[in-house]
Amino acid sequence: MSIEVSTGEEPYLIVSSDTHAGLQCEDYRPYLDSSLHEEFDKYVEERHEHRRITEEVNAEFIEKWEGENEEGLKGAYDSSVRNGVMDADGISGEIIFADGDAVTGQESPPFGAGLAAGQITDSKLAFGGARAHNRWLEEFCGDDPVRRAGVALVPITHDVDEAVKEIEALAEKPGIYGVMVPTMWHGFPPYGSDHYDKVWAACSETGLVVHTHSGEADFPSYGENVAMYISEVPFWTHRILWQLLFSGKFDRFPGLKFAVVECGSFWIGDILWKADINFGGTNKIKKMGSRMKGLISRLPSEYFGTNVFIGASTMSREEIRRRHVNGIDALMWGTDYPHPEGSWPNTVERLENDFRDVSIEDTRRLLGLNAVECYGLDFEGLNSIASRVGPTPKQLNQDPELRTSENALREARWWLDEYGCELQY
Amino acid sequence: MSIEVSTGEEPYLIVSSDTHAGLQCEDYRPYLDSSLHEEFDKYVEERHEHRRITEEVNAEFIEKWEGENEEGLKGAYDSSVRNGVMDADGISGEIIFADGDAVTGQESPPFGAGLAAGQITDSKLAFGGARAHNRWLEEFCGDDPVRRAGVALVPITHDVDEAVKEIEALAEKPGIYGVMVPTMWHGFPPYGSDHYDKVWAACSETGLVVHTHSGEADFPSYGENVAMYISEVPFWTHRILWQLLFSGKFDRFPGLKFAVVECGSFWIGDILWKADINFGGTNKIKKMGSRMKGLISRLPSEYFGTNVFIGASTMSREEIRRRHVNGIDALMWGTDYPHPEGSWPNTVERLENDFRDVSIEDTRRLLGLNAVECYGLDFEGLNSIASRVGPTPKQLNQDPELRTSENALREARWWLDEYGCELQY
Repeated sequence: MSIEVSTGEEPYLIVSSDTHAGLQCEDYRPYLDSSLHEEFDKYVEERHEHRRITEEVNAEFIEKWEGENEEGLKGAYDSSVRNGVMDADGISGEIIFADGDAVTGQESPPFGAGLAAGQITDSKLAFGGARAHNRWLEEFCGDDPVRRAGVALVPITHDVDEAVKEIEALAEKPGIYGVMVPTMWHGFPPYGSDHYDKVWAACSETGLVVHTHSGEADFPSYGENVAMYISEVPFWTHRILWQLLFSGKFDRFPGLKFAVVECGSFWIGDILWKADINFGGTNKIKKMGSRMKGLISRLPSEYFGTNVFIGASTMSREEIRRRHVNGIDALMWGTDYPHPEGSWPNTVERLENDFRDVSIEDTRRLLGLNAVECYGLDFEGLNSIASRVGPTPKQLNQDPELRTSENALREARWWLDEYGCELQY
Repeated sequence: MSIEVSTGEEPYLIVSSDTHAGLQCEDYRPYLDSSLHEEFDKYVEERHEHRRITEEVNAEFIEKWEGENEEGLKGAYDSSVRNGVMDADGISGEIIFADGDAVTGQESPPFGAGLAAGQITDSKLAFGGARAHNRWLEEFCGDDPVRRAGVALVPITHDVDEAVKEIEALAEKPGIYGVMVPTMWHGFPPYGSDHYDKVWAACSETGLVVHTHSGEADFPSYGENVAMYISEVPFWTHRILWQLLFSGKFDRFPGLKFAVVECGSFWIGDILWKADINFGGTNKIKKMGSRMKGLISRLPSEYFGTNVFIGASTMSREEIRRRHVNGIDALMWGTDYPHPEGSWPNTVERLENDFRDVSIEDTRRLLGLNAVECYGLDFEGLNSIASRVGPTPKQLNQDPELRTSENALREARWWLDEYGCELQY
């Protein structure tokens, strides 16, 4: 997709690569197989108890957040409210994940089948909860399939054949553009094994983008210590990346796309540096070198922007500074609406602050075009929404004279020259 | 320790913060409790079978490495050879870990009690193997306690009281300066729990530095895929850092020092950035903020260089460039002798290449002074060896005019200002 913009007047087409939606937990009942209603009623009770406890611990924050944003928070499940909220925030399109309520967990799919899917041990509940959310999500995204790209839930660890059937059915639904798999594989085979190959094949063929999303981590190792959780959760979320990449899944299934979401992007550059030189550096010692050969066909960094994408949410300024190291074609900005750690409802102010040193060309990629390409979204349709709601570079106080260096990738990925790595692709 | 050097003539006092020593596996027999001899004989057989397989897979590399370095490799276990090897490599002192042979694993303590200690499931074998190595190491380091600082093996996961007894006994031995604990805790309580507090107390009181060393990782997740192993092994090695730090162990046990070894240093800056702003940033949202309060008393980065040290081995040039982000007081260079991924036997050439843009002041810290401070080594004794064997800045072609900026820390740790973090210490 060519980008030809030289003025600051054309509004940004913004796709939030990370938003959330979900019913209030009890409202999932009609979407759930009735055989699971008994377990479901227990789950709902548990959720309300969880809310009670969370309110005790964090009363002040919750009251302020929910009080100030009462109307907008309804967009988590109310289709008619949602587009107004997006408009006001400058957002044209969105990639929608489960778990609308990240504060007290009230909008969690049955049995925690959303961001905590890996914690479910009963296969029946894992698929039942996922399907209930998927049925609702198909309706919700079907209401506006230009703006809403839903990411359905598929607990692939529990049953590969069942997962493939679900993926094939999902691919038929307008508004469904991806699937989220459990972040962790726990006692099941790891994602790089052959065990899931039918899943990757189905995603490759249907074009549904595979996702992991921040949420799960190795909870038993932290006790109550939230600082340990925060420091480890990116690792557990992006760990699947090298399972897929280094086992050659992107070579075997060339249509396979994987996006890791709300996991930041700060960690990427160092991983690419290390991986590129292990696979392609000319001056590394060869103790293990011979065992790397033939695993993959390009340098690891060359899969970024074709097979690997990063739903980096509200990137920090430092992460934006590192955009060419981490992958100017792979990074996708997002608001994380309606979660409080995101930019909503102050997205335009946030963009104005964070993108002030960024060229318009780079900004367009990060804010929308990369997502359009990754998911195959309706560019024309989104553009006509953007012309109405998108902020312009001028509104973000950007300097239209800023240009991206022609040699930006090579300058940013310093290791390619320092270690003599040859690009293969 | 003040550093006043303005010429390029004074030799560097180099302490290799990462070397290895160990007997040929069968030679540990006399150091092992005789009750374990039967299991030991099986282990030795297994080791030789391992060598046979490794030779098949990597014949060319092994032949070349062992052929070219036959005499020097004997320094792994031969006390009379070792100092000559160190002299020739420009090294005055060394911090000595187990597992001399990293290529075919022939110099591994009984039952894998060295770098693979966490893999042992039988407590009797874990302590038995560790003690056999420790007895030998006490002798080996006792031969030259000025140059040789041994790191003994203590499998703390298996028995805390037993571990404390071992630590107290080790503290009496000249030449023993630290203990290495299993990298992973597997099914045992995590290191940040209260379970091991007696161990941390004993180390704090005796001054023995606690270590993890690169080696173990989550092997079942990789199958035969060495690229996955390489990309994850740093995480598994430095994971203990936030277990100790965020659980407040360095506040409760102020004499406790922890060093993570042969794990690189590239990962530190981002961890400090994230952790400092979570604990001290003024513009982070507070969804989980209230749960961070009171866990620790300083900013995470402020424990570096007092309680936390990094045995960074042969740092890459990029890691050397990042020295002020990662901790100019905390980083300790090392040769990894006699492992092939290290700088031996070409250490001086390596230093000349890698330190050419570094001030003499910074070089002195990284190459030796930080280790002297971390371990409380004999500065005078080492200095007199250095005057004989250490390369001078002039020999490394360094520019004596290069100076370290007075404000280097603040410039490198950009997040302190960008996020408004106040130093506490």
